[in-house]
Amino acid sequence: MRAEIIATGTELLLGQIVNTNARFLAEKLAEKGIDVYWQTVVGDNPLRLEEAFRLALSRADLVLSSGGLGPTADDITKETLAKVMGLPLEPHAGWQEYLEQLFSRRPGFRMPPSNRKQALLPRGARLIANENGTAPGIWVEKEGKIVVLMPGPPRELEPMFTKHVMPLLPETGSIIMSRVLKITGLGESLMEELVSDLVRAQTNPTIAPLARQNESHLRISAKAKSREECLRLLAATEEKLLARLGEHVFARDEETMEEVVAGLLMAKKYTLAVAESCTGGLLAHTLTNVPGSSAFFLSGLVTYSNAAKERLLHVPSSLLAEKGAVSAEVAQAMAGNARELAHSTLGVGITGIAGPDGGSPEKPVGLVYIALATPEDVRVKRFNFFGKRENIKERAVLAALNMIRLYLIRQTG
Amino acid sequence: MRAEIIATGTELLLGQIVNTNARFLAEKLAEKGIDVYWQTVVGDNPLRLEEAFRLALSRADLVLSSGGLGPTADDITKETLAKVMGLPLEPHAGWQEYLEQLFSRRPGFRMPPSNRKQALLPRGARLIANENGTAPGIWVEKEGKIVVLMPGPPRELEPMFTKHVMPLLPETGSIIMSRVLKITGLGESLMEELVSDLVRAQTNPTIAPLARQNESHLRISAKAKSREECLRLLAATEEKLLARLGEHVFARDEETMEEVVAGLLMAKKYTLAVAESCTGGLLAHTLTNVPGSSAFFLSGLVTYSNAAKERLLHVPSSLLAEKGAVSAEVAQAMAGNARELAHSTLGVGITGIAGPDGGSPEKPVGLVYIALATPEDVRVKRFNFFGKRENIKERAVLAALNMIRLYLIRQTG
Repeated sequence: MRAEIIATGTELLLGQIVNTNARFLAEKLAEKGIDVYWQTVVGDNPLRLEEAFRLALSRADLVLSSGGLGPTADDITKETLAKVMGLPLEPHAGWQEYLEQLFSRRPGFRMPPSNRKQALLPRGARLIANENGTAPGIWVEKEGKIVVLMPGPPRELEPMFTKHVMPLLPETGSIIMSRVLKITGLGESLMEELVSDLVRAQTNPTIAPLARQNESHLRISAKAKSREECLRLLAATEEKLLARLGEHVFARDEETMEEVVAGLLMAKKYTLAVAESCTGGLLAHTLTNVPGSSAFFLSGLVTYSNAAKERLLHVPSSLLAEKGAVSAEVAQAMAGNARELAHSTLGVGITGIAGPDGGSPEKPVGLVYIALATPEDVRVKRFNFFGKRENIKERAVLAALNMIRLYLIRQTG
Repeated sequence: MRAEIIATGTELLLGQIVNTNARFLAEKLAEKGIDVYWQTVVGDNPLRLEEAFRLALSRADLVLSSGGLGPTADDITKETLAKVMGLPLEPHAGWQEYLEQLFSRRPGFRMPPSNRKQALLPRGARLIANENGTAPGIWVEKEGKIVVLMPGPPRELEPMFTKHVMPLLPETGSIIMSRVLKITGLGESLMEELVSDLVRAQTNPTIAPLARQNESHLRISAKAKSREECLRLLAATEEKLLARLGEHVFARDEETMEEVVAGLLMAKKYTLAVAESCTGGLLAHTLTNVPGSSAFFLSGLVTYSNAAKERLLHVPSSLLAEKGAVSAEVAQAMAGNARELAHSTLGVGITGIAGPDGGSPEKPVGLVYIALATPEDVRVKRFNFFGKRENIKERAVLAALNMIRLYLIRQTG
């Protein structure tokens, strides 16, 4: 089965919004083993939209469309499809009643006559409920072709597709499943070197490196007749990759570094306090994004100025004067004092130069020292990060989290 | 002049990445007054890619393509276009030399033979320099049609297009310019009510509300013969909107709330210290994203636990016991003490429940108190934010920044 995705809307053609619906639908169709060969974006223009539908019906068995189902005169997707398929539009009594009730619930509101248009369906079409808006989805089948019209806003389209359209799609006999391994602490090219023979040799599953901002990702995609077979293929390839990449693999799929670290800390009932200079609170923010982080995260100090480092963190002014605020020694003092002040198991100290100003030949922009204070010692690492201010902050936070992770997993191992 | 954008790549068809190149190119073409009628996504398949080029050349004067210029056998965009246009591929001596030099600079590396492919150009084509990768862009003109091939990675395509392709595009005689006003402190529907008559009545410029996560945006788009005329139209409409929305408009275009607040603080030479509970460092992170923020940002305290609030911020344990950590009084104590500890002009205190756990009927998830300590007083506001943990953090930070902004602009006024 071949599918085509059509998205309509002037906002897309003018580049005011990005076509996330196409990505979402394509990913879901891949899971179902349905091949998407074309994605098209077209404006709310009757002639071109008609051309888009005719073209899609000529080269695909399943056409998924998003947008143009609103109540205004510009919304013409349903009308255009009805014309292309030669089906008259007829009112759907159930949806009209539903809309009237919906509007009557808002005091002082009556349904605008224009909304009545949203209860019209091509003859023989199936209505697909929309729990998040007034435009229903529409499923039309004719001469072996299926067309599904869905509203444009992702908060309406996504739940509608997952809940009501996915179950109606035919089984294809084969499905595709993917798994992503997330890698850090290795350069992109070094990682590719370590696995390039596997990447080349594998055909099912395939392995593809994905370029991401601060992390390296490897996507494993398996195609098979069943979910079980896919999972078996994925697991076998994952095992091969883990043998090469070891503890550089920090997470799988949607899991984030902070979730992994939070999980390890909570499992050990360890607590943490952090002291940040150049990362400006991003480490604390990242860790506290994890629900339940109050179990391990005791406190964060953002000591941007030297005065704050002295007053809040008790970093000796003599040390700041002698070594400079950006130094291994100050990072260690920050980590150690953060830990002592908070009475936590672990303490982190980060100091560096995020730029764009403040760099020098000896201490360039991107130089960052990260220290980890543990019950045993205070270890420190020096990094040279590239990129803009925000990238440097992000990379420093990822590196700090990775230091915590490696300490915790090596301790277990 | 009509344009079509073609993006190639299996990652797009499988929904693994979102087509940001199409959005970027569409926006840039709109600025030039070039109409985009179609956007197409197609895989690295010779037959379908050929069909995509033939179709695009039949309905557009300008075809912009992204992707498929890499060194591997899967990269077939250039080869396919050369076939469609009947032009043989020929080596470009300059680019081949450039590539060889590039690789020779990496010790121990030699240029893989596959990269030689990247120095091939269709006969008569113009090479477009790529300062961020090995694949050059290609500009082909034949029989009144222009085709521009660009590499897929946005970090290569975007600077290449802006710097080298934009200046080559023909003038269209009319241009479109847009301006975005960013609004906060008003609900989406209240904002729409305040301006709906203007939105309906305006045809040039048009006014369109854009739904954004935590802010409301209004986009004004003007079409005119010249840049000056566009700017005049935009300014006149902006003035009308400002008369309705007043100080709820906090920024224009790419400007962010934190940049506005940083600018106001720096202009007054004021300093700031913050104490955060439920926002977990996000306020400090957001402010320190602004380059030069060390001029005003003295320190941040992330006092997640009650113990940290007492020990680091000197919030009386009696107050915590009596009023609870999430209370107006504790927010005020946090703001006041943060200000005193840092000797700053202003202090901010935030305490609330970000969820998903920790809510109760009296203090539900989303309840947040934000206090601002100034040389005059300590004011506090109570908010009920909706959404997930991260949304609540983001909304609380935006509200805190807005409190600082309103204090500073009202002081001036």
